[in-house]
Amino acid sequence: MTRNICLVIEYDGTRFSGWQKQSRDRKSRTIQEEIEQSGKKLFGKKIRLIGAGRTDTGVHAEAQVANFKVSSRLPLSNIKKGLNSYLPKDIAILSAEDASLDFHSRFNAKGKLYRYTILNQDTRSPLIDRYSSRVVYDLDINLMKSSARCFVGKKDFKSHQASDKKNRTSIRTIKRLDIVVNPPMIDIYVQADGFLYNMVRNIVGTLIEVGRGKISTKEVKKIIAKKDRRLAGPTAPAKGLCLVKVIY
Amino acid sequence: MTRNICLVIEYDGTRFSGWQKQSRDRKSRTIQEEIEQSGKKLFGKKIRLIGAGRTDTGVHAEAQVANFKVSSRLPLSNIKKGLNSYLPKDIAILSAEDASLDFHSRFNAKGKLYRYTILNQDTRSPLIDRYSSRVVYDLDINLMKSSARCFVGKKDFKSHQASDKKNRTSIRTIKRLDIVVNPPMIDIYVQADGFLYNMVRNIVGTLIEVGRGKISTKEVKKIIAKKDRRLAGPTAPAKGLCLVKVIY
Repeated sequence: MTRNICLVIEYDGTRFSGWQKQSRDRKSRTIQEEIEQSGKKLFGKKIRLIGAGRTDTGVHAEAQVANFKVSSRLPLSNIKKGLNSYLPKDIAILSAEDASLDFHSRFNAKGKLYRYTILNQDTRSPLIDRYSSRVVYDLDINLMKSSARCFVGKKDFKSHQASDKKNRTSIRTIKRLDIVVNPPMIDIYVQADGFLYNMVRNIVGTLIEVGRGKISTKEVKKIIAKKDRRLAGPTAPAKGLCLVKVIY
Repeated sequence: MTRNICLVIEYDGTRFSGWQKQSRDRKSRTIQEEIEQSGKKLFGKKIRLIGAGRTDTGVHAEAQVANFKVSSRLPLSNIKKGLNSYLPKDIAILSAEDASLDFHSRFNAKGKLYRYTILNQDTRSPLIDRYSSRVVYDLDINLMKSSARCFVGKKDFKSHQASDKKNRTSIRTIKRLDIVVNPPMIDIYVQADGFLYNMVRNIVGTLIEVGRGKISTKEVKKIIAKKDRRLAGPTAPAKGLCLVKVIY
């Protein structure tokens, strides 16, 4: 009996070279590979795991979604427990459900929600540094909030795509870009129908430049319109980024 | 010019054998030793650091307080920055201030506030496990809250002191014991004028037994009255514990 199992997965990305299996470099740990290996141990055969979002090196996930097909009669609770027992501590399967055979975690995703966490203080914080990126400059939150609005909507985000990546199209729709302040923490939530490579980190990098007064809201509009990666702010570090939710 | 420098310190206790220097075992890392070594590098001479609370292996601190005497004219901001530059990433000096020469971070402390964090769910959480202890059982929070009240006040806490430790007196005053629930997290705040070895972790262990229905509130009162460590619940794991504040 072939089944399509849908997993919700949490991970601490600190010690991973991202989600995706890397055939060239066998030394790097990836989340996909760890789960596929656990699946092989549990089912006694190879599984091929499809992830909704291919998170990058150092990026965390509260609820990544992935699916795989397997011929097995194992109850779902045993699949969840079994995979968790083989997985390292920095990955956890939060749930395992049966999905229809045509469900594809990436193609069926309607959108994703990411959170970028900034620690806005002078001194490093050993208890928070692992899941945030520190900005020592004073940030004007109101300026950041007005600039954030420029990104919302269906737009060509070529200026905020990694310069070495070529997608078929760089048009995406950002549904939500909220900045939630709880000093010294600043959480930036970005929800879109899809994301280009480094898109959230490039948008956050631009918003930090805005907060520092280096770029105006007017310039942000121009940067987006010009579709040139060189104009936008630097890429914010990976460790502040977390995949919060995949929307179906 | 002899000065008495008072530091506020944050640390991730995961990779430390606690606060206190251990003369016997030179391989174990301790917070006190790391800061004393940084002080030696910064001032060119030994410093002797007195900590307000000697946190145990694996226990974290948001704001530990410590002081040391030194003959130096270095501005406070340079002392803070200098120590931080020599310290490993899991320790940070949040502030450095001049104190009166008779200030003693431990003897002058009027009290301390600790927080114990429970993750109350079935599955492990890679993003939270480092700073919490997981309890998989259903917990009756109302029972835990009524039992918590039994601990508040001036009492002999011999039943909740590590059995191998002998203090001059085991009488302490708990000013506050609050349970704050934000599912799946449960934070237990304990403020007292002083703490016996393992006292918070033993109280939390007892409260978890209460939440599971294994010990009644009436029995908690008896356990405290009997002054016998063997009657109380098990010691909760160190990684859920954090020194939040030292009160002067």
